[in-house]
Amino acid sequence: MKLAHLVQLSLGEDVGPGDVTTEATVPVGGVGRARVYAKEGLVVCGHEPAAEVFRQLGATWEVVVRDGQRAVPGQTIGHAAGPLRALITGERVALNFLMRLSGIATHTAATVAMFSGPSGAALRVLDTRKTTPLHRSLEKHAVRCGGAFNHRGALYDGVLIKDNHVVAAGGVTAAIHSARAAAHHLLKIECEVESIDELREALAAGADAILLDNMDDEAVVAAIIINQETPRTSGPAWIEASGNMTGPRIAGLRVLLESRGLRLDAVSMGGLIHQARWADLSMRVEAAPA
Amino acid sequence: MKLAHLVQLSLGEDVGPGDVTTEATVPVGGVGRARVYAKEGLVVCGHEPAAEVFRQLGATWEVVVRDGQRAVPGQTIGHAAGPLRALITGERVALNFLMRLSGIATHTAATVAMFSGPSGAALRVLDTRKTTPLHRSLEKHAVRCGGAFNHRGALYDGVLIKDNHVVAAGGVTAAIHSARAAAHHLLKIECEVESIDELREALAAGADAILLDNMDDEAVVAAIIINQETPRTSGPAWIEASGNMTGPRIAGLRVLLESRGLRLDAVSMGGLIHQARWADLSMRVEAAPA
Amino acid sequence: MKLAHLVQLSLGEDVGPGDVTTEATVPVGGVGRARVYAKEGLVVCGHEPAAEVFRQLGATWEVVVRDGQRAVPGQTIGHAAGPLRALITGERVALNFLMRLSGIATHTAATVAMFSGPSGAALRVLDTRKTTPLHRSLEKHAVRCGGAFNHRGALYDGVLIKDNHVVAAGGVTAAIHSARAAAHHLLKIECEVESIDELREALAAGADAILLDNMDDEAVVAAIIINQETPRTSGPAWIEASGNMTGPRIAGLRVLLESRGLRLDAVSMGGLIHQARWADLSMRVEAAPA
Amino acid sequence: MKLAHLVQLSLGEDVGPGDVTTEATVPVGGVGRARVYAKEGLVVCGHEPAAEVFRQLGATWEVVVRDGQRAVPGQTIGHAAGPLRALITGERVALNFLMRLSGIATHTAATVAMFSGPSGAALRVLDTRKTTPLHRSLEKHAVRCGGAFNHRGALYDGVLIKDNHVVAAGGVTAAIHSARAAAHHLLKIECEVESIDELREALAAGADAILLDNMDDEAVVAAIIINQETPRTSGPAWIEASGNMTGPRIAGLRVLLESRGLRLDAVSMGGLIHQARWADLSMRVEAAPA
Amino acid sequence: MKLAHLVQLSLGEDVGPGDVTTEATVPVGGVGRARVYAKEGLVVCGHEPAAEVFRQLGATWEVVVRDGQRAVPGQTIGHAAGPLRALITGERVALNFLMRLSGIATHTAATVAMFSGPSGAALRVLDTRKTTPLHRSLEKHAVRCGGAFNHRGALYDGVLIKDNHVVAAGGVTAAIHSARAAAHHLLKIECEVESIDELREALAAGADAILLDNMDDEAVVAAIIINQETPRTSGPAWIEASGNMTGPRIAGLRVLLESRGLRLDAVSMGGLIHQARWADLSMRVEAAPA
Amino acid sequence: MKLAHLVQLSLGEDVGPGDVTTEATVPVGGVGRARVYAKEGLVVCGHEPAAEVFRQLGATWEVVVRDGQRAVPGQTIGHAAGPLRALITGERVALNFLMRLSGIATHTAATVAMFSGPSGAALRVLDTRKTTPLHRSLEKHAVRCGGAFNHRGALYDGVLIKDNHVVAAGGVTAAIHSARAAAHHLLKIECEVESIDELREALAAGADAILLDNMDDEAVVAAIIINQETPRTSGPAWIEASGNMTGPRIAGLRVLLESRGLRLDAVSMGGLIHQARWADLSMRVEAAPA
Repeated sequence: MKLAHLVQLSLGEDVGPGDVTTEATVPVGGVGRARVYAKEGLVVCGHEPAAEVFRQLGATWEVVVRDGQRAVPGQTIGHAAGPLRALITGERVALNFLMRLSGIATHTAATVAMFSGPSGAALRVLDTRKTTPLHRSLEKHAVRCGGAFNHRGALYDGVLIKDNHVVAAGGVTAAIHSARAAAHHLLKIECEVESIDELREALAAGADAILLDNMDDEAVVAAIIINQETPRTSGPAWIEASGNMTGPRIAGLRVLLESRGLRLDAVSMGGLIHQARWADLSMRVEAAPA
Repeated sequence: MKLAHLVQLSLGEDVGPGDVTTEATVPVGGVGRARVYAKEGLVVCGHEPAAEVFRQLGATWEVVVRDGQRAVPGQTIGHAAGPLRALITGERVALNFLMRLSGIATHTAATVAMFSGPSGAALRVLDTRKTTPLHRSLEKHAVRCGGAFNHRGALYDGVLIKDNHVVAAGGVTAAIHSARAAAHHLLKIECEVESIDELREALAAGADAILLDNMDDEAVVAAIIINQETPRTSGPAWIEASGNMTGPRIAGLRVLLESRGLRLDAVSMGGLIHQARWADLSMRVEAAPA
Repeated sequence: MKLAHLVQLSLGEDVGPGDVTTEATVPVGGVGRARVYAKEGLVVCGHEPAAEVFRQLGATWEVVVRDGQRAVPGQTIGHAAGPLRALITGERVALNFLMRLSGIATHTAATVAMFSGPSGAALRVLDTRKTTPLHRSLEKHAVRCGGAFNHRGALYDGVLIKDNHVVAAGGVTAAIHSARAAAHHLLKIECEVESIDELREALAAGADAILLDNMDDEAVVAAIIINQETPRTSGPAWIEASGNMTGPRIAGLRVLLESRGLRLDAVSMGGLIHQARWADLSMRVEAAPA
Repeated sequence: MKLAHLVQLSLGEDVGPGDVTTEATVPVGGVGRARVYAKEGLVVCGHEPAAEVFRQLGATWEVVVRDGQRAVPGQTIGHAAGPLRALITGERVALNFLMRLSGIATHTAATVAMFSGPSGAALRVLDTRKTTPLHRSLEKHAVRCGGAFNHRGALYDGVLIKDNHVVAAGGVTAAIHSARAAAHHLLKIECEVESIDELREALAAGADAILLDNMDDEAVVAAIIINQETPRTSGPAWIEASGNMTGPRIAGLRVLLESRGLRLDAVSMGGLIHQARWADLSMRVEAAPA
Repeated sequence: MKLAHLVQLSLGEDVGPGDVTTEATVPVGGVGRARVYAKEGLVVCGHEPAAEVFRQLGATWEVVVRDGQRAVPGQTIGHAAGPLRALITGERVALNFLMRLSGIATHTAATVAMFSGPSGAALRVLDTRKTTPLHRSLEKHAVRCGGAFNHRGALYDGVLIKDNHVVAAGGVTAAIHSARAAAHHLLKIECEVESIDELREALAAGADAILLDNMDDEAVVAAIIINQETPRTSGPAWIEASGNMTGPRIAGLRVLLESRGLRLDAVSMGGLIHQARWADLSMRVEAAPA
Repeated sequence: MKLAHLVQLSLGEDVGPGDVTTEATVPVGGVGRARVYAKEGLVVCGHEPAAEVFRQLGATWEVVVRDGQRAVPGQTIGHAAGPLRALITGERVALNFLMRLSGIATHTAATVAMFSGPSGAALRVLDTRKTTPLHRSLEKHAVRCGGAFNHRGALYDGVLIKDNHVVAAGGVTAAIHSARAAAHHLLKIECEVESIDELREALAAGADAILLDNMDDEAVVAAIIINQETPRTSGPAWIEASGNMTGPRIAGLRVLLESRGLRLDAVSMGGLIHQARWADLSMRVEAAPA
């Protein structure tokens, strides 16, 4: 869904046939400017949808603090300017985008901070497909603004074999072979494994990437070592750990891996998005622009 | 936006031109059943969009624990049945709806519980227009499932004069008169006030409802008394308090009001929705249906 | 439905894949101007859709006699200018909007004139939901151009309990209580009554507004008096009379009410719209613009 | 625009996010039946959109008096059956279609009756493109139900050269030749003429059909005779008279032509549609269906 | 389907949520110019969709060799200019339109060349409704660019009675009479005939045009003569031959008819479109524009 | 674009407001059956869109010769059954899909046959993104029906760095590194190279796959050997040859490679699709179904 379409539908949802209050109380010809400011410390995200909201209503949007930067309480992050009616009618939808996305960026930044040491060798944290329907690309952008990374975008641009696929295909090997035969050659095959045995089977079957599902630290370490030691023409698989991942857990895992000289390619956390609350932002209409 | 359209776009976002993994690994003719269960205690919400997801993919959905009811960890809340491919492809989108909405219902229920005494005379709590774009009617339904109530739906079905309108109209009285003249006779006029002076002006100008914005408990009490004592042909206004409302604050306010024998019509809290996290639910494919 | 969308579909209906005649006979590069003029006395209405028609075809529209003003036979009410092909292809759709809407405005003005005395104390006349599908907001605008007022816009922005609702709910009291419980606090509850008994019941149940359905003058007078004399915290209900309302009937009713010193809040008439014929307007292409 | 789409948008216009009153007062599970009946004598038209309205809401529609047949006051013309909520929510939109279209059919029938003698040799009356935007095919169907006939459907399925085209093309002959060269071979070329000179020019240029614009009876007679007497390989042109046509005018013209033994192919009247008022129909919910 | 909509969907098909490669490798701010050139001799066609592709991506398109003109190998036919990302992302879709349409124009021109003699009295060649779904108007434009002509556009703007219609209607005469009664007066009636007997019947029934289906040269000659010799008020019918028409066949037929002094109005060939291959064009990004 | 939407738009293009001929000549109630048969030897493809065409018109489609199977001249490949009007109105659109797609499947099969030896060790042939706008997934399916394979689906599900990207990124190495950093971990990075030097650079930079652009047989052999001999942790790259590939060229290349004991992963050919002509199929309405 294109951003312009998403915003058009969002304005349709809130404004619909008309903003009765604004049409009744705000004179038609009035123009003005409004500032949007942080009411708490946050990482800013959401300028694109906010700008689109005001653009569709005939106003403009100017960025002050860019996506991915921090704002302190009271700091202005952007200005809207144009017809007063547009500013007031668009306020809520614009803020709903900005507050949600800044909330995700802020929560992601706080999570990443828990395990990013001074050595700079932080673990790569990925999001998942646990995203709000129709807001995925915005939320994935917010994750990047917060300092984490994106997993595949959707079911059509990556192959990830999960437990239900394995059962349906009749085993890990069968599933990997079927996927390799069906997918075009530019898609890697990732396979979720729940045990060391499944890991060995997936490596033997030619998986390009492995998702270690809900394994404890010890098992993760064992898996990394096995992967390194399994001889394959295509080299070791790419390895990702997932399930019950939190900031503190990752911080501990990172120390453990560093002490053993091991490398994990990524961890993935749905919570970057689904445990985030909205950040607090507000809009205030100011004097008319000069 | 109709639910069917929302779900269609949501499947488009996640599935798009095709679920590569499932098409490669799950046989075309397979049928089965999947159970969706709670992984923590929660108030269930979201059966309608979940059912629509599976319906659009050619499967069916059966409700076990209804919207608004509680589920304990491990409890099945619904079953999907039909083509295996449909179950597996639809899993994520269906869960994304269920987890978000159950999260809001659960958070709302917890908030309401903080100030609902044995006397049963709890304060009425309303949501606001701080909702996720395109998910408003679902989120407002989740709020009801959690035991709270809905404010107006959108800008087109209620008149609420806020500070920016007052400034643009040239004062509280002018804004209320303009709104009364422009709105059809079945819409009440609510006006936000930030001081006792504004309250008196709004009551004199004929406001049907008053929103007390960011007032402390004392000011709320004063406002309620003034409203009762102001003689008007149409009787006292309906009064709502808003701004910085939390469960504990409301619990205290409720005790204070009861001790004074006063009645507040409602409080409104955006946080019912924007401070909620997703509830944890999971899906597991089971044997084929009999 | 946004005006731009309505006009886009309307041009699709008439022009579709192409205006064969114009494409064959009018040179591509030609530009010109066309005047639209009244062929009879009328109240003008419809500039917005006419302008949108020409805008979508790449031409412009200039208003001469504004919406709500009168035009005499022969008087120019607007000019279109731009590519000759656009002027000629858009002529019919633009006129179809202008002629319909001017017809409604003219008919409404004539109706209102029947009972608007020199004292200026005319009765407020409202339209109804008897409007042409997809043309409602335009037709309601035409009603205002003709000097009358609008009832609620649609089923979603006002509560009006009619006879079928009363039957389904199990009585007037039950219906009003159900509506009050379900509707948000900014919506008033109007109830249609067909007898004085129903009126008393509706007032006692807390209806904010009353629609007197098909009552004769005597009954209307009685209803007004009862409403005034019924003690309610919220004061008297707002009262509207409807059913078989015509200009002459309203003129008589107005005299009767004035002689008794009584006040009726409104009468509603579907006929403002559904008894109107199109006004006669024509377009003539003139010389190319300077 | 497909009927299903037109009805979907029409329900969107009236119901939008929800019928507040019906949802509040009518129990979810109730089913019933409603009869729609004539409140005055009329020619019925509009069953298709009415049926589609109820179908989209989950109810059904049964035709009693078919499109094109007459109904007397009080006569039932159709029944809706199904969920009570669907019947009540759909009532207004269904009636808005039925009342408009029956009004056109009734007005057309009355107009045609003015000049249809016992000899059965009535003149053929055509509609025009003066139709309500997005309702054209329904209105043209209503015209047929009333006993008249349809002109071309739109700009894309017929060639009709009007005065503005003639001016732009540089004369009648040039316009007809351009149209013949550009249009595919299955489209005839009709040319509007305002004088006998233009008629002769159009016949010589090979027009397949002629529209006599605003000519008086004498001129019409002269035109018919000239057309008959002009030798052309393709025979005489098809002739249509238009402009200021009313029932009485046509009745007189018909007598005149019969007395002279002359034949006019058609007259066209925009007024069949734009001078029609809505017919009066009503719906009443009855007991639940057996 | 409007061109803008077709192109929007086409970009959606190829670009969808994003051009991963270009977004990763091409800097955001870069601008440039690209030339599109012929890699073989061809008749150019497709500038309109190519321009629309680049316009929708924020770039511009300049025509060098116009639609319908010839280009030699290596010759530049147009330039795109604007953001580098837009040029590279839009390349494939723009070329897919240009290569397909130029292929049809080139194939049509080659076909027409086979039977267009120095006398200039070539037979008129028409396309058919055998076109690529959603590309019809573009393909019909390509046919004109190649020097041939268009038959009717679609099922709604021309009447052509084929064998299946004749069977369903109960004979040629019945089918023609039904069509004449139902179609508005500006549509001619064409009837397909498979024998001389059917031809005579169609002429007697008043067909305006005749399609000779799969007749050999001798039968075509006979049909033309019969048509000329059949006395009808409306003169001879318009005659078209179709079925197994190829360039060489038409060349021979043309010589035969000329030698007999006979005239055939048209031949129709689906192969103008469905036997065409794509022409070879390529795009190369050049230095940034001055 | 979903198939149902594509077919809906395609019917809109051809049928639009109505099939004038069929509505006039085919009785409303008639039902029947039609067979679609091959008029030449072909590989069948297109049952899905054909079935959807008839389904949307209210008829059904039964497959006789499945997609990917061969049909001999005269052989029935499917039957449509249902309302006669639906069969006749849908014929052209259904055949337009079937003829185009069977043409591609047949051409692909013939191409593949040129180099598929009895040893069964044929080269893998891929299509490209040179497809008809909005028909890509159907055409790619046709390619598979003809025995070849698919490259990536679109710009969003695979990374392929081409010459223009290399220039914009500032070199092969920079482009590959940028792509690896930006793409999620499940997408492989393919890079087009035009020389052996570029090949070495791409291998060193970590390309997962290599496209040899327009190299002669000798260069292809050299590239394969270099790839095998370059030591990389991730093993040799996947190699594809493209540019000026024809059946005979591939046949020769295959023999050469086999003689040298070398393996090429794939060749890609846009011509599988853009050099295909339509296959010849016809529909005949038969007696009504029993």
